[in-house]
Amino acid sequence: MAPVLPAYNLKPKTALPAEEKKQQSDHSNHILYVRVRLATDESDVPFIHGLIHKMAAFYHLSDECEATKPALSSTLFNSKTPFEPFKTVTVFLVEVSSTPFAPNHPSTQHFNHIETTLHLPHPINDPEMELFRTEEGTIIAGFVIFFPSYSTFLSKPAFHVEDLFVREGYRGKGFGGMLMKAVASQAVKMGYARMEWTVTTWNVASHTFYEKLGAHILQDWRIFRLADDALLSYGRSD
Amino acid sequence: MAPVLPAYNLKPKTALPAEEKKQQSDHSNHILYVRVRLATDESDVPFIHGLIHKMAAFYHLSDECEATKPALSSTLFNSKTPFEPFKTVTVFLVEVSSTPFAPNHPSTQHFNHIETTLHLPHPINDPEMELFRTEEGTIIAGFVIFFPSYSTFLSKPAFHVEDLFVREGYRGKGFGGMLMKAVASQAVKMGYARMEWTVTTWNVASHTFYEKLGAHILQDWRIFRLADDALLSYGRSD
Repeated sequence: MAPVLPAYNLKPKTALPAEEKKQQSDHSNHILYVRVRLATDESDVPFIHGLIHKMAAFYHLSDECEATKPALSSTLFNSKTPFEPFKTVTVFLVEVSSTPFAPNHPSTQHFNHIETTLHLPHPINDPEMELFRTEEGTIIAGFVIFFPSYSTFLSKPAFHVEDLFVREGYRGKGFGGMLMKAVASQAVKMGYARMEWTVTTWNVASHTFYEKLGAHILQDWRIFRLADDALLSYGRSD
Repeated sequence: MAPVLPAYNLKPKTALPAEEKKQQSDHSNHILYVRVRLATDESDVPFIHGLIHKMAAFYHLSDECEATKPALSSTLFNSKTPFEPFKTVTVFLVEVSSTPFAPNHPSTQHFNHIETTLHLPHPINDPEMELFRTEEGTIIAGFVIFFPSYSTFLSKPAFHVEDLFVREGYRGKGFGGMLMKAVASQAVKMGYARMEWTVTTWNVASHTFYEKLGAHILQDWRIFRLADDALLSYGRSD
């Protein structure tokens, strides 16, 4: 049986009164280290691939998910061009560990990690932990994938968030918020105009989550798509 | 008074029976040369700027349009990085001329022009022609601005079309279709998965236009946006 990680309780990390501290030591005796870092090379592709397929299953869209590891490698980490995070498709991973993270991860040259520590009363049930274990020993819990877009009205770049996903067992613990906040911080740092993303009308829980971040739905806008045979037929030279 | 360009009639360019040809020579005695080309440098910024502001007025959104020529220059044609059309924000312009285009425009090293010739019975009323006249003497009639996006499910890049606009007087002549087709052809050429763009619910004429191209609305999807103070407040480091 796969080992399990302790789960989160809602107690804050800040200093607590002695009595509360005592209670916490009784009920929250597991520490979970959490970090958002940049995916920088092919070693993360198996985890990104796994997360994409988990996400497809969550949306009941596995039939439409054609993501392969070689295709992800060549499109996300093309060795022919220099790695330029934020200028093209970029992935942030949220990973957890029961021990402190080793410093000097190679990704820090491009992006300062965002770290937090959770005190947890219950173990996280993660039967697929081994599939998401990195060489460093951390467990990948979720990801956000985004790329630069552009606003003509503002004449400024922006970020489009393509996907946000946290694996079952790690949800409801603030990991999605950490990932979105990491993208927002990067947007602010780069002077970008805004962040946009799409949601299904039926995923009302996500609407509430995004509205709490300060985002709003553009009610009067719809997305048009031209793809597959229709694109080939229209775009092929006459 | 500004000179006017002849307008389009619906007669095809292909060989016609003698009788019809005679009629055409009576009624369509003006030829309009039309070309879609890539915008490659700052010399096109005044036209792009003008088109963005015309588009804002069309949508009654002039108050929200902050586009400036310096901001467009630095974001579209940043001299610090090599010009890489299709890898970042890219602009196709549609321009017209009453005489054949000079060959060897500098943009042809990145994108083969798409040209057509229209036979026109009536002049186009374009009181702002001089504002949109290039050094070469052509008149800029419209543009499409697009950038690469990404589909995780397909692990492939795609194109997001940010804006499509044709100036009044040049509408209804197939220019918008030429621009969209130019983007579609480029997507097919690069093996990209699809094209997507957004539309307002009330712009029903554009829906019909896009559906005729083979595109469809994603009815179950909405766009979320995080911008302005909400982005700053959320994204600023604690």
